[in-house]
Amino acid sequence: MSLLQSLECTACGKKYDPNQLIKLCECGKVLYPRYDLESAKETLSRDLSSRSSNIWRMHEIMPCTKDYRFTLGEGGTPLLELNDLNGINIIMKDEGLNPTGSFKARGLCAAVSRGIELGVKEFIIPTAGNAGAALAAYCARTGTKAHIYTPKDAPEMIIKEFEAYGAEITLVDGLITDAGKLVKAVCENKPWFDVSTLKEPYRVEGKKTMGLELAEQLNWALPDVIIYPTGGGTGIVGMMKAFDEMETLGMIGSKRPRMVSVQSSGCAPIVRAFDNKEKQATVWQDAETLAAGLRVPAAIGDYLILDAIYSTNGCAIAVEDQEIIDTMKLLAKQEGVFMASEAAATYVGLVKLVDQGWIDKGENVCLFGTGSGFTTPEMW
Amino acid sequence: MSLLQSLECTACGKKYDPNQLIKLCECGKVLYPRYDLESAKETLSRDLSSRSSNIWRMHEIMPCTKDYRFTLGEGGTPLLELNDLNGINIIMKDEGLNPTGSFKARGLCAAVSRGIELGVKEFIIPTAGNAGAALAAYCARTGTKAHIYTPKDAPEMIIKEFEAYGAEITLVDGLITDAGKLVKAVCENKPWFDVSTLKEPYRVEGKKTMGLELAEQLNWALPDVIIYPTGGGTGIVGMMKAFDEMETLGMIGSKRPRMVSVQSSGCAPIVRAFDNKEKQATVWQDAETLAAGLRVPAAIGDYLILDAIYSTNGCAIAVEDQEIIDTMKLLAKQEGVFMASEAAATYVGLVKLVDQGWIDKGENVCLFGTGSGFTTPEMW
Repeated sequence: MSLLQSLECTACGKKYDPNQLIKLCECGKVLYPRYDLESAKETLSRDLSSRSSNIWRMHEIMPCTKDYRFTLGEGGTPLLELNDLNGINIIMKDEGLNPTGSFKARGLCAAVSRGIELGVKEFIIPTAGNAGAALAAYCARTGTKAHIYTPKDAPEMIIKEFEAYGAEITLVDGLITDAGKLVKAVCENKPWFDVSTLKEPYRVEGKKTMGLELAEQLNWALPDVIIYPTGGGTGIVGMMKAFDEMETLGMIGSKRPRMVSVQSSGCAPIVRAFDNKEKQATVWQDAETLAAGLRVPAAIGDYLILDAIYSTNGCAIAVEDQEIIDTMKLLAKQEGVFMASEAAATYVGLVKLVDQGWIDKGENVCLFGTGSGFTTPEMW
Repeated sequence: MSLLQSLECTACGKKYDPNQLIKLCECGKVLYPRYDLESAKETLSRDLSSRSSNIWRMHEIMPCTKDYRFTLGEGGTPLLELNDLNGINIIMKDEGLNPTGSFKARGLCAAVSRGIELGVKEFIIPTAGNAGAALAAYCARTGTKAHIYTPKDAPEMIIKEFEAYGAEITLVDGLITDAGKLVKAVCENKPWFDVSTLKEPYRVEGKKTMGLELAEQLNWALPDVIIYPTGGGTGIVGMMKAFDEMETLGMIGSKRPRMVSVQSSGCAPIVRAFDNKEKQATVWQDAETLAAGLRVPAAIGDYLILDAIYSTNGCAIAVEDQEIIDTMKLLAKQEGVFMASEAAATYVGLVKLVDQGWIDKGENVCLFGTGSGFTTPEMW
């Protein structure tokens, strides 16, 4: 049973009937699914032992009815203890163990499942790589069609993966934002559903399951700090949504982790906005970073990411590409974890914040290892 | 608590104290860890909800004490429903979602953990690839050293992975059996512990967790048929050991799945032995197959694999490399699963057995997707 009740604009508050295909609010901002949380309390509690470990585990607060809960076994990823750093306890959620090797599987699973429930047959996405792989996989899984628009310098292995899943691929001379413009134009003439980050209401629901799982895995005591690599930013905002819903459900208290956004110094619109104490970010010109997932010059959910940071006394921090590469190797050698560049960036951010004294001895920090090292073979 | 009691020879039955470093029985055959299963009944039941999802979930019947249960989050892999084939129900256990992308993580996690508990500081392994990656990862995780001997035509990405984990790599001009000979010679002069398949008693304990999980995930009703790709063969024999232990513990009944071993026609020693109704296999000359994990000309556990097949009315079947390649693509396009060549081989075997009428309408078949497509990038 899904207790989905409405879609609500995160900016102006306007509500919509969720049983229709809809992307953004009339005001141009992001829509969030809202649930009947009072009714959810009747069946949803901390005892989840008899439930599946995939993203549909807390199905009451997920969008799809039973027949549309497709899965490739996404979610249920492990929480690994890393070595202490100056007396700070570090854990990493290994999202690389999702299907297609990254956390993107969660969001696309939810978006494709809900899209199909609402009648979609073909999906379209602009992607730096991982989101496209996830879309392609779930489309193959469900017998729908994926149209992928990706920068022409996307990793070769990812292109091969798109092909294997039978997706239609368009290589774009430019960045993910250029791919996004093309996708927008194409959608004017085609009945394809655009599942760009936060431009439809359901990817965020898949992402929020990272927050649901984290709370459960930590026995309902959230960490002091969460460090997340930020491109489109659905990870952070999805987790904040999860924490709010869990609090209303009585599963956790009101304490929130300080949310930290890590970006590459070659593309750091959120960091710049944070440094300038702004509520929205401006487009980053000439974005350049080896970490493809961080090469997002403008995020439609910028105000949500910044709000998550400000409201939790978090921060945003930029790291260098060379630091990322060095840290990918360090994490493999020192911790035995083989992470993608975006994931390694969180550890670089951690080290900087520890050096700055922003994190105190004895605090608990959770890094999000958003992707497997297999997804960025060119980086090794 | 581990209820490890002894090591017992699978051939002559001789027993050994398990609190010593030991490889094979004096008679040259494989040793199995044995547990105090009567005492295990006191704490081990079908209710496992409060336990970790990694390979230490049923710690009573695993080798290590608490401080030596290292983990990278291996195990707890999903069971995916595939499309029916002629009315036959097919599920696939997606072992590609283990750390390092294959089921090898389970066995090496157990072997390294137990080795360290018994004082080992450096490990050595001959490998076609995946086992080496897993050893390297767990050595990095535990601060021990990995020495890897692998055919020089091993996939480039896997060599890079070995390097990332800080392993010492020796490229061998030959097959895994040639690497094995070199390892044996090196070990005469070095205090390095050889964790070759079934040449020490604990890798099989990691592998058996596939059987433990399968039973639990299927609500303690095993499938009618299990199809497994067979190189060294620890997967099949490990699962049989798990089923026997679970039966003694009262967790499952006496019914066993028919165990099917799939090999490549270019290296099929178990299939040849099965066809000739032999209890042991002979060395396969000039082994050649694109599926590196199946390129094992001789397996020390041959008699155990064949016994598992005969005692369950199973069978062994060979498939062609081209069929494997075609099926990797078919599985990605049709099911949304991105599998390694060895894993795809199980589906080829399934189709053949269905065509032969060896599997009946309405039967439940479980394929083991032993590795992720990421582990064999050269195949795409």
